[in-house]
Amino acid sequence: MRCDILAVGTELLLGQITDTNSQWMGEQLAAAGIDSLYQAKVGDNLGRVTTVVSRMLADADAVIMCGGLGPTHDDLTRDAIAAVMGVSLEFDDTVAQFIRDLFESRGRRMAENNLRQAMVPVGATIIPQTRGTAPGLICPVTIEGRSKVIYAVPGVPHEMKDMLQRAVLPDLLERAGEASVIVSRTLRTWGESESGLNERLDPVIERLEAEGNPTLAFLASGWEGIKVRLTAKAATHAEASAVIDRWDAEVRALVSDIVFGVDDDTMESVVLQLLRERGLTLGLAESVTGGLVAGRITNVAGASEVFRGGIVSYASEVKFELLGGPEGPVVSEAAAAAMAVGAQRVLGADVALALTGVAGPAEQDGMPVGTLCVGIAIGSEVTTRTLRLPGQRDQMRQMSVISALDLLRRRLSAA
Amino acid sequence: MRCDILAVGTELLLGQITDTNSQWMGEQLAAAGIDSLYQAKVGDNLGRVTTVVSRMLADADAVIMCGGLGPTHDDLTRDAIAAVMGVSLEFDDTVAQFIRDLFESRGRRMAENNLRQAMVPVGATIIPQTRGTAPGLICPVTIEGRSKVIYAVPGVPHEMKDMLQRAVLPDLLERAGEASVIVSRTLRTWGESESGLNERLDPVIERLEAEGNPTLAFLASGWEGIKVRLTAKAATHAEASAVIDRWDAEVRALVSDIVFGVDDDTMESVVLQLLRERGLTLGLAESVTGGLVAGRITNVAGASEVFRGGIVSYASEVKFELLGGPEGPVVSEAAAAAMAVGAQRVLGADVALALTGVAGPAEQDGMPVGTLCVGIAIGSEVTTRTLRLPGQRDQMRQMSVISALDLLRRRLSAA
Repeated sequence: MRCDILAVGTELLLGQITDTNSQWMGEQLAAAGIDSLYQAKVGDNLGRVTTVVSRMLADADAVIMCGGLGPTHDDLTRDAIAAVMGVSLEFDDTVAQFIRDLFESRGRRMAENNLRQAMVPVGATIIPQTRGTAPGLICPVTIEGRSKVIYAVPGVPHEMKDMLQRAVLPDLLERAGEASVIVSRTLRTWGESESGLNERLDPVIERLEAEGNPTLAFLASGWEGIKVRLTAKAATHAEASAVIDRWDAEVRALVSDIVFGVDDDTMESVVLQLLRERGLTLGLAESVTGGLVAGRITNVAGASEVFRGGIVSYASEVKFELLGGPEGPVVSEAAAAAMAVGAQRVLGADVALALTGVAGPAEQDGMPVGTLCVGIAIGSEVTTRTLRLPGQRDQMRQMSVISALDLLRRRLSAA
Repeated sequence: MRCDILAVGTELLLGQITDTNSQWMGEQLAAAGIDSLYQAKVGDNLGRVTTVVSRMLADADAVIMCGGLGPTHDDLTRDAIAAVMGVSLEFDDTVAQFIRDLFESRGRRMAENNLRQAMVPVGATIIPQTRGTAPGLICPVTIEGRSKVIYAVPGVPHEMKDMLQRAVLPDLLERAGEASVIVSRTLRTWGESESGLNERLDPVIERLEAEGNPTLAFLASGWEGIKVRLTAKAATHAEASAVIDRWDAEVRALVSDIVFGVDDDTMESVVLQLLRERGLTLGLAESVTGGLVAGRITNVAGASEVFRGGIVSYASEVKFELLGGPEGPVVSEAAAAAMAVGAQRVLGADVALALTGVAGPAEQDGMPVGTLCVGIAIGSEVTTRTLRLPGQRDQMRQMSVISALDLLRRRLSAA
């Protein structure tokens, strides 16, 4: 089964927005074992859209069209599909009523052109909206005697994602004659390279490749570590979940030390959860990261239950005077320890995490660029660590954030 | 002149990386007045790449191929171009020597396969590398009696950008029979919507549309305000720059109050520069933004000359005790003023910026979500402002950062 992708919208060609939809859909198709060999962007021009879809359908079994389902005269996806199918558009009363009701429930006046979204190519199946106004479409079409299909989904990312998972992928799998439920789980890891992870997971990967279900993929996410994604197909959701559970356990048996979370977990949400469970409050002292750790922590809703505050000690005097550290080199484990204890005291926190280091461009106190000293105070116990991190200023600072939070996570998990 | 774009790489189809290169190139082509009506992604498969390029050249005058110029057997762009041109590849001694020298200068052993990058389609012109090993290519080709051109540039973004600006755009403009130098300048603005900016600039826009050179475009950059980009074409760099200077002044005459910088300036770099010029140091007190302002400030190299540090006062007690604010509502102008004065004192800073507000999900102290109170202390003068910002938690916090920095910028500029 080959499913290519066409993103529709002049703004994509002009570079006014990035086409992240195609990337996301490509990732989902790959995880489902469906080939996607060609992906394109075209502007809001009926002739060109129609030509391109026809060409793509000559090579592929299916094409997903993304965008161009809105209410304005620029939204031509419905018309292009009708042209390729060789049918007309007809007004769908159910869709129209849904759109009217939606506007009414939001207390907004509906402009008449919104009813363009109720025009449906004859023979198409509606994918009902759950979040917006434009329904998706499943449009069977016969090309040179072969049954093919065009899917249309909105360009709004969360609407597109919902319809792809709820309707398009199951339909594609059914056409491919495969079990029609897909369940994915992503294990978040930190502290191992992709090749290192690959080596450690080799025994599991070999068995998975022999069985073919679930699939396992590594997704690099830059400063956020490597994600290990398991994707299972089965006849029912329960069966697919059971397969995932079994292989999740197999993967963790080999790399449990570096798995810090699942799916939407982040390092900061996991640390906050550990603190919450233990009834502990957190304070921060940052120099090299200059507030980045605090910024990440406070981006988690509910952080205020646990997080007391932080000191960004950029000038050395602030380290010495406010945090009460010893005079001396400011990039050292002794300084990190003093900062942690100072932050604990000044902020009235049970636990404190301190970061001092050298982001560059030049070395400092004889310490090379990339040096990070971390201090952790939990009650009266203080531990320190020195790490050497790669990269330029921005990368080194971001790596420092997650590395230090991971050290705290490990201390808390062990406590 | 129509120039379409083909990004080459299986990893793009699988969604392992986002194709931001096409977006950037689309933006540059649009600014240069060159149509780009179709952009596609294809995997590392010689047959498919060749077919796709041929099809694209049937419709367009030029195609830019991005990626697939590396040293491995997966890198097939050179072979595909030779196939479309109907020529063979020949070994280019100059390119080979450049690659050997580059490895030697970096003290690294060169694997033999790197010399694949010295294979050039007969009749192609080299775009010399200035940053990596793979040269770019300008490949003239005749399709049904018409002269067309294929450009090949590396997929590494900074190499691609360099070659596009240095060689591809000038070549395209020359083929279009146009003046061959393009100069752009971007004015950064904050505090006006795109439609508001459009209205204020209407007199200039009308005159520009009549003259056609330079072009003016609005680029929304989300939390970073609206960018106004002027792009001029001329025979020489000096002429193009003079055109830009003239229209830059015209634009500023209408909206000088909201222009905070040019090109790579950021709100934080501008604020730091104003402080540096005035010999003033900065301290921060943040609650709602939880360290985001400090994180942005310290991401500017050289921030340490000016920036003393910051207090992230998330728990109310930290506000009261550490910063010495009055007990009472923590989201108020009085609290913001007290935080600024406290930060000035505690951090030993000449200037302090304080932010307190409600990011949600719930209101606080009777203040609605989106409320931001800003306090600014410069010497003994303290001023405060309350803003109502839109958006969910993350957006409200990011808007707070730039809004507060802009208030500080205005105070410093007036001082």
